[in-house]
Amino acid sequence: MDASPLDGFHEECGVFGVFGHTDSGALTALGLHALQHRGQEACGIVSFDGTEFFSHRALGLVDAAFGAADVIGGLKGHAAIGHNRYATTGETLVRNIQPLYADLSFGGFALAHNGNLTNAHTIRQALVRQGSLFQSTTDTEIILHLMAVSTRNDVIGRLVEAIGQIEGAYSLVALWGDRLVGLRDPHGIRPLVLGRLGESYILASETCALDIIGATFVRDIGPGEMVVIDRKGIQSSFPFAYKGAESRFCVFEYVYFARPDSFMEGRSVYGMRRRIGAELAREAPVEADYVVAVPDSGVPSAIGYAEESGIPFELGIIRNHYIGRTFIEPTNQIRNLGVKLKHNANRAFIEGKRIVLIDDSIVRGTTSKKIVEMVRAAGAAQVHMRISSPPTAHSCFYGIDTPSTSDLLAHKMDVEAIRTFIGADSLSYISIDGLYRALQDTGRDSGGPRFCDACFTGDYPVPLTDHANNCAGAKVTDLRERAGT
Amino acid sequence: MDASPLDGFHEECGVFGVFGHTDSGALTALGLHALQHRGQEACGIVSFDGTEFFSHRALGLVDAAFGAADVIGGLKGHAAIGHNRYATTGETLVRNIQPLYADLSFGGFALAHNGNLTNAHTIRQALVRQGSLFQSTTDTEIILHLMAVSTRNDVIGRLVEAIGQIEGAYSLVALWGDRLVGLRDPHGIRPLVLGRLGESYILASETCALDIIGATFVRDIGPGEMVVIDRKGIQSSFPFAYKGAESRFCVFEYVYFARPDSFMEGRSVYGMRRRIGAELAREAPVEADYVVAVPDSGVPSAIGYAEESGIPFELGIIRNHYIGRTFIEPTNQIRNLGVKLKHNANRAFIEGKRIVLIDDSIVRGTTSKKIVEMVRAAGAAQVHMRISSPPTAHSCFYGIDTPSTSDLLAHKMDVEAIRTFIGADSLSYISIDGLYRALQDTGRDSGGPRFCDACFTGDYPVPLTDHANNCAGAKVTDLRERAGT
Amino acid sequence: MDASPLDGFHEECGVFGVFGHTDSGALTALGLHALQHRGQEACGIVSFDGTEFFSHRALGLVDAAFGAADVIGGLKGHAAIGHNRYATTGETLVRNIQPLYADLSFGGFALAHNGNLTNAHTIRQALVRQGSLFQSTTDTEIILHLMAVSTRNDVIGRLVEAIGQIEGAYSLVALWGDRLVGLRDPHGIRPLVLGRLGESYILASETCALDIIGATFVRDIGPGEMVVIDRKGIQSSFPFAYKGAESRFCVFEYVYFARPDSFMEGRSVYGMRRRIGAELAREAPVEADYVVAVPDSGVPSAIGYAEESGIPFELGIIRNHYIGRTFIEPTNQIRNLGVKLKHNANRAFIEGKRIVLIDDSIVRGTTSKKIVEMVRAAGAAQVHMRISSPPTAHSCFYGIDTPSTSDLLAHKMDVEAIRTFIGADSLSYISIDGLYRALQDTGRDSGGPRFCDACFTGDYPVPLTDHANNCAGAKVTDLRERAGT
Amino acid sequence: MDASPLDGFHEECGVFGVFGHTDSGALTALGLHALQHRGQEACGIVSFDGTEFFSHRALGLVDAAFGAADVIGGLKGHAAIGHNRYATTGETLVRNIQPLYADLSFGGFALAHNGNLTNAHTIRQALVRQGSLFQSTTDTEIILHLMAVSTRNDVIGRLVEAIGQIEGAYSLVALWGDRLVGLRDPHGIRPLVLGRLGESYILASETCALDIIGATFVRDIGPGEMVVIDRKGIQSSFPFAYKGAESRFCVFEYVYFARPDSFMEGRSVYGMRRRIGAELAREAPVEADYVVAVPDSGVPSAIGYAEESGIPFELGIIRNHYIGRTFIEPTNQIRNLGVKLKHNANRAFIEGKRIVLIDDSIVRGTTSKKIVEMVRAAGAAQVHMRISSPPTAHSCFYGIDTPSTSDLLAHKMDVEAIRTFIGADSLSYISIDGLYRALQDTGRDSGGPRFCDACFTGDYPVPLTDHANNCAGAKVTDLRERAGT
Repeated sequence: MDASPLDGFHEECGVFGVFGHTDSGALTALGLHALQHRGQEACGIVSFDGTEFFSHRALGLVDAAFGAADVIGGLKGHAAIGHNRYATTGETLVRNIQPLYADLSFGGFALAHNGNLTNAHTIRQALVRQGSLFQSTTDTEIILHLMAVSTRNDVIGRLVEAIGQIEGAYSLVALWGDRLVGLRDPHGIRPLVLGRLGESYILASETCALDIIGATFVRDIGPGEMVVIDRKGIQSSFPFAYKGAESRFCVFEYVYFARPDSFMEGRSVYGMRRRIGAELAREAPVEADYVVAVPDSGVPSAIGYAEESGIPFELGIIRNHYIGRTFIEPTNQIRNLGVKLKHNANRAFIEGKRIVLIDDSIVRGTTSKKIVEMVRAAGAAQVHMRISSPPTAHSCFYGIDTPSTSDLLAHKMDVEAIRTFIGADSLSYISIDGLYRALQDTGRDSGGPRFCDACFTGDYPVPLTDHANNCAGAKVTDLRERAGT
Repeated sequence: MDASPLDGFHEECGVFGVFGHTDSGALTALGLHALQHRGQEACGIVSFDGTEFFSHRALGLVDAAFGAADVIGGLKGHAAIGHNRYATTGETLVRNIQPLYADLSFGGFALAHNGNLTNAHTIRQALVRQGSLFQSTTDTEIILHLMAVSTRNDVIGRLVEAIGQIEGAYSLVALWGDRLVGLRDPHGIRPLVLGRLGESYILASETCALDIIGATFVRDIGPGEMVVIDRKGIQSSFPFAYKGAESRFCVFEYVYFARPDSFMEGRSVYGMRRRIGAELAREAPVEADYVVAVPDSGVPSAIGYAEESGIPFELGIIRNHYIGRTFIEPTNQIRNLGVKLKHNANRAFIEGKRIVLIDDSIVRGTTSKKIVEMVRAAGAAQVHMRISSPPTAHSCFYGIDTPSTSDLLAHKMDVEAIRTFIGADSLSYISIDGLYRALQDTGRDSGGPRFCDACFTGDYPVPLTDHANNCAGAKVTDLRERAGT
Repeated sequence: MDASPLDGFHEECGVFGVFGHTDSGALTALGLHALQHRGQEACGIVSFDGTEFFSHRALGLVDAAFGAADVIGGLKGHAAIGHNRYATTGETLVRNIQPLYADLSFGGFALAHNGNLTNAHTIRQALVRQGSLFQSTTDTEIILHLMAVSTRNDVIGRLVEAIGQIEGAYSLVALWGDRLVGLRDPHGIRPLVLGRLGESYILASETCALDIIGATFVRDIGPGEMVVIDRKGIQSSFPFAYKGAESRFCVFEYVYFARPDSFMEGRSVYGMRRRIGAELAREAPVEADYVVAVPDSGVPSAIGYAEESGIPFELGIIRNHYIGRTFIEPTNQIRNLGVKLKHNANRAFIEGKRIVLIDDSIVRGTTSKKIVEMVRAAGAAQVHMRISSPPTAHSCFYGIDTPSTSDLLAHKMDVEAIRTFIGADSLSYISIDGLYRALQDTGRDSGGPRFCDACFTGDYPVPLTDHANNCAGAKVTDLRERAGT
Repeated sequence: MDASPLDGFHEECGVFGVFGHTDSGALTALGLHALQHRGQEACGIVSFDGTEFFSHRALGLVDAAFGAADVIGGLKGHAAIGHNRYATTGETLVRNIQPLYADLSFGGFALAHNGNLTNAHTIRQALVRQGSLFQSTTDTEIILHLMAVSTRNDVIGRLVEAIGQIEGAYSLVALWGDRLVGLRDPHGIRPLVLGRLGESYILASETCALDIIGATFVRDIGPGEMVVIDRKGIQSSFPFAYKGAESRFCVFEYVYFARPDSFMEGRSVYGMRRRIGAELAREAPVEADYVVAVPDSGVPSAIGYAEESGIPFELGIIRNHYIGRTFIEPTNQIRNLGVKLKHNANRAFIEGKRIVLIDDSIVRGTTSKKIVEMVRAAGAAQVHMRISSPPTAHSCFYGIDTPSTSDLLAHKMDVEAIRTFIGADSLSYISIDGLYRALQDTGRDSGGPRFCDACFTGDYPVPLTDHANNCAGAKVTDLRERAGT
């Protein structure tokens, strides 16, 4: 899958927290660097030294935002939380960059969130009617306002009360007083893991953020669990795990989002992708000369497909990683040349060959169409497309930026029509059952899925309240303000 | 007086508004340019085109912030308000730059304020306890929150209710729906004038901002008055003019702040300064060769002093205007050279001469001491300091950034001690009665002052509620965030 | 006179040098700050620590370019030279910012120049034909190339040989090995003064740059003189003072360019302007109510005029100093409002009055026309324009950026026509004889002028070789490169 | 191999040129983007529209430097050349960014160079003695000066005469008048290819820069060949192909530098690397569970090794591509954590396994040591290092930035000592004969190598004149100037 703005999903966020380390700011920056694939538009860190909060938030990559020694040096204290953000619409405003911070009646409170709330607009409208002033346009801010207007006396009580009113998918880290908190929604849709580094505790979206600082993985935070970390240690409770709620971890983290070196819910992401590729080879074999991945996301499945099928794996497409956020606005004349900023076919191993092309998904189809064209232009005799997930036919409301359902190619076409559209000689997706076999999960057959697979099946485990109220897209009256202010 | 960060008063703001002109953004930028002397740290404009609000806010001068064509072009619409800000403490955060903007339940609302609220912290604490989340650290934001939590149904009602709860000195311009509003506090402490440009209405802190765009002066907005301008015209009411409230316009606007080409409350600022100088010559004559002003603020009074005394006015001190906000951090060795970044003595007209030096005020005294030293080093035979205001012995709580009372030289010393401190041969201030004579105001003699002269007399016309509650300096828990974010 | 890009002269440069002080970089920055009026587009400093050269050059004001502590700290060493530049055409390229630096066969050599060479293109063409590669488009670089191709063995010899080939007006400071050099052209057209600060020597374009660092004035460098300063002291010689060459100091330095607190050739600049004003009052008296200067440059002459005539001097025009290089691109609608970014009439003292308006010169006339209109619009009964220099009828080729002769208003019109053009009730210029009387110089009557007054008389003391060769405007093939690179 | 500043080679440059296309600037930017791996510190483009030259040069990546529409729009004309630069020492000065440009006696001339001249300092010293002034510190500038001082009348004659005097490795593109020129040194050490896009001609360092714009590959420019392209077409000559000179193409382009999808001298780079990996498997087999590449450069050889050995290829190391030029300055405490900014072991496939680790080379050894430690820390049972090139024991003088010979690990240690240093269980390099077998080149056995393999063998095909004259490191007296000026 291509993560370009035109064709693809976008995980909105990565979160990180640390408690009990004198280099909390630097560790958080490193953790966010390891989670950079979860959001590249903006990043921020808030630290706390027991008395004061310190913050730095900026547009762009972690590397650029936190590279200067004085920036890290300014993030004083033994505790910190951080956030990577992928803005889904329009320009990113600095005031939307997380962690959000508020001066509540009990003092400062900082919050970072990965996920999406499905009743955010409904709650926001009620809060505004009651006199709340919103400063950002992010869903996350409603949690701060719900805490602010809570009548509970204790901070934990206010937080639990606030979280109790929101719906959706959320993995949160929060910092106040001298406490770091991590919590996950009742279905555990988005990931959150706990690690240790000496005496310090770490919270992170993925285990790769533990690896970068040499921390050890302790366990996944559970669905509906809240952990509160302070100088006395860690305390766990399950205030959000209501009766009947079952674990529905996002299956797309395995298929595409997570870094291959991460472990999620006990499984190696790379291992799962490799197994999916092998299952795909069994479900949709084809006679061919080479297995070629659309890099980088298709590589693990392609290796699995190659091993199972016995067809050699080759680097038939080369990716140019030196690419930023803007590029040359081509004239029409140049556009017609079919400029390939990001990928190039490795003609030496394509020309005259029958190619099995492995990608993780097809969203709008424009990228897949270009890739097939590029491979054909390099002389491929045949192009057989194999997709390591079922057709993406339903929009995600739980934190992954997908087009609306009506724009999804698989919503509008059947597989044969998609094949024609992208110009492949053959096209197969893995089946939903094949996907679960690969994940070693008996899936639907044994009492329902243990994953959220709504993007494939339309089975949404959490109510879509805003959507039902027709206020998901309700316009927030907002300033048209230039980026950076 | 020297407006350096180390020694001086700082007017916090200038405001401007326009309704009914297709170039509202450009006119506002020009108006703010004319008001630049009222605040140089930051500036902002919000415009409205009938449907959407547009905003640009930036650190620095108007010229730099709004010079680019696309910036002005982005401020669409027929109505706009703008603000110049002088930040009194620490670094300026972009989120503190006015106009402030809020998404209230009735839609967007923008607000710009010149003045200072004396019960802001008291109200803020109450609002935070009730669940309001503050996004800036400016006093102005409490007005937005008071409006947000108001139970009134109409916007004007909410605004009047909110303003009814605040105390202090305030001249406000606000923009919402299709209305521009201007209002002044019950005592009319800070200025606000109304102008016309063809069919358009203009609101501005000073008349010089009308001149720059060729608008005509209509009248001063009155103490406690509110004007509401919309497509149907202008409506005036006096919702804040409570019984017994009398006009107490800031006398220091005449002495120092306002631009000499402005008219305030019907008087020419330049003319008043010239008259003050003449009165000073009568009250405190001295035999001397030349009258020399500390430029630029001392010039009008010096001309008046020269005319009345018959002693020639000369440019004995030259000011370097090419000076920005930062300058070379000198080594101690250089510091001892007595570097004169801003002023230089005109030795040809100083050497061997008896000099009457005219300045508008002495705050901490460090600048005056340096100036006297510089004039002596250039060979002056005698230096007689004359100050065109009474001793500044009390801190201002109404929008002028003065040191706390205990840091004011005139609070700690009598005139003779100040003379010794600054090293002058003689020192005289104009008397409070002399000042009122010059202003053609019978002053205290006839039933009380018609000005606020608290900085000279300690007679504060508006209660200092925060000060009494010991919460004026109450720490707002705030992020230490780097400038620009 | 208005120094706007559209109407006015522009002094191209200020130079500064110091030898023998551990803070040479900081002192040079301070000196350039005092000389900022001589060039505001770019500035640069090169320092030398006995082994290495250090440099910082930037677009913009000295204050901004050298404000950061690490910039000054990087300019190590006991000797430094600096330069302020006003670029006369198009965008300023960083590679044109002086001091220029070259790696010559004897080592590094840095050079800064105030003035203009009248045979620069002629020499450049010859050098390029012989194989010299030019890196800048400044005239100054030809001196480096002439030194590079010299066959002399000693650096001084090469420098003298190079200077011997150039024509025009030049005041230079240079730094190499462990020597600081200052020199002036045979006629001493542009200024250069020598000062001392303890054991250190200072060279500067004006004495105000000595004052700012507390240095004492020693003497003017003489026409055709070269001083060489090293650890052993200072040595003077006159290698460029050819037989028959007479001092022809630029009279326009007195009239407009120099700072009023500077002394030039033994005369106080302020004093001279004041005397010119008085002479003008004698030559061109008029009945009026107030004498008003076009600020800031017209003020000293206005004071002189007022004193001589007995008509009171008033601040009838107020200048806004908060103005940078760019401003709002007005729409036509706004342009027609007659926006006054820089000046405003002080209506209180203009309305109904007869005004004598004093300015230093009229170049293209557009600014004068606007000022007269502004004063009339403020209600002046009569406007009598008095100019403190003779009509500017000839272009300058010696370092002052004037329009070409054919664009000068006084070249195209007689005084009456100019009066009509600018809309004044009367107009008088001081006569050339009056000017010399004011300067206490017997002038033309006693064997020829002792000043360069070519801009008034067309009497050019130095040959205009490029002009004669038609190569003054010869196009240098140059890259269109974006500013800053 | 790790291309970090601390451990690795650095190809200095990529070049690109186009003639005969209205979008020459955009095409060149795209070409440079495809060549970004050859230099990431700075980039520049000069275009020509038949009359004027246009230029933009900047620090940083092509994407950032040329992303703005107005930048590309400013590069007018039908011909352009461009350059990517990797600066080998200290900070990059803008004046060193290529293409270099000079105003020669016949007009403007622009030049971009990939390679390194081995007699540059020797020539530079002679030129400086004769009066040439250098503006950059790059070797390339001597070519401009040699042309400038040439007595030949025609530009081509001057260029040929200049190139005739230089020694080293050079692939050049040049632009002047209405001609684009490409040329290669007599041994063809550095690459240069010719392509066509419709009626336009393209020159580029690698074929991947043809692919990105859809141009077709025509042929390699030959050793000692010069092609001159103008509106009439292309003309080839061999002015630099002296008698006895044989092709000695850089073998390290195959091993590491070139992009795998490029073809060089008729061979697929990916295919060669794959063959080298297979040969390495034959020469240095080992019993193991997985073949793991050090990404990205080790991947093709690892695939070859895996296929030949039958051991499965796995993504045992994951690379984080979101990395810029600076990163968090870690405290010592953090440094000791072994922070892995760029690579992470894929623990799921490492733990308990015997790993064959494939990298392309070992330079200083520090990166290899860290990688081996990381793989062991992830639980590898054994780590067998295999290097797809012979030991790098000699410094490169032909355009690849290597440490001096004395700093190369293979110069100081034998293979067993290196194995101990990096901590591997076994270590093998491919033999020089094995390398040539893989490249299908009979190599030394049949009358001498057809490649430059000096970095492995010390057999330098071009004299090291500067080195012999001890002036390779001769200090150029240079300004210490801040980046960007």
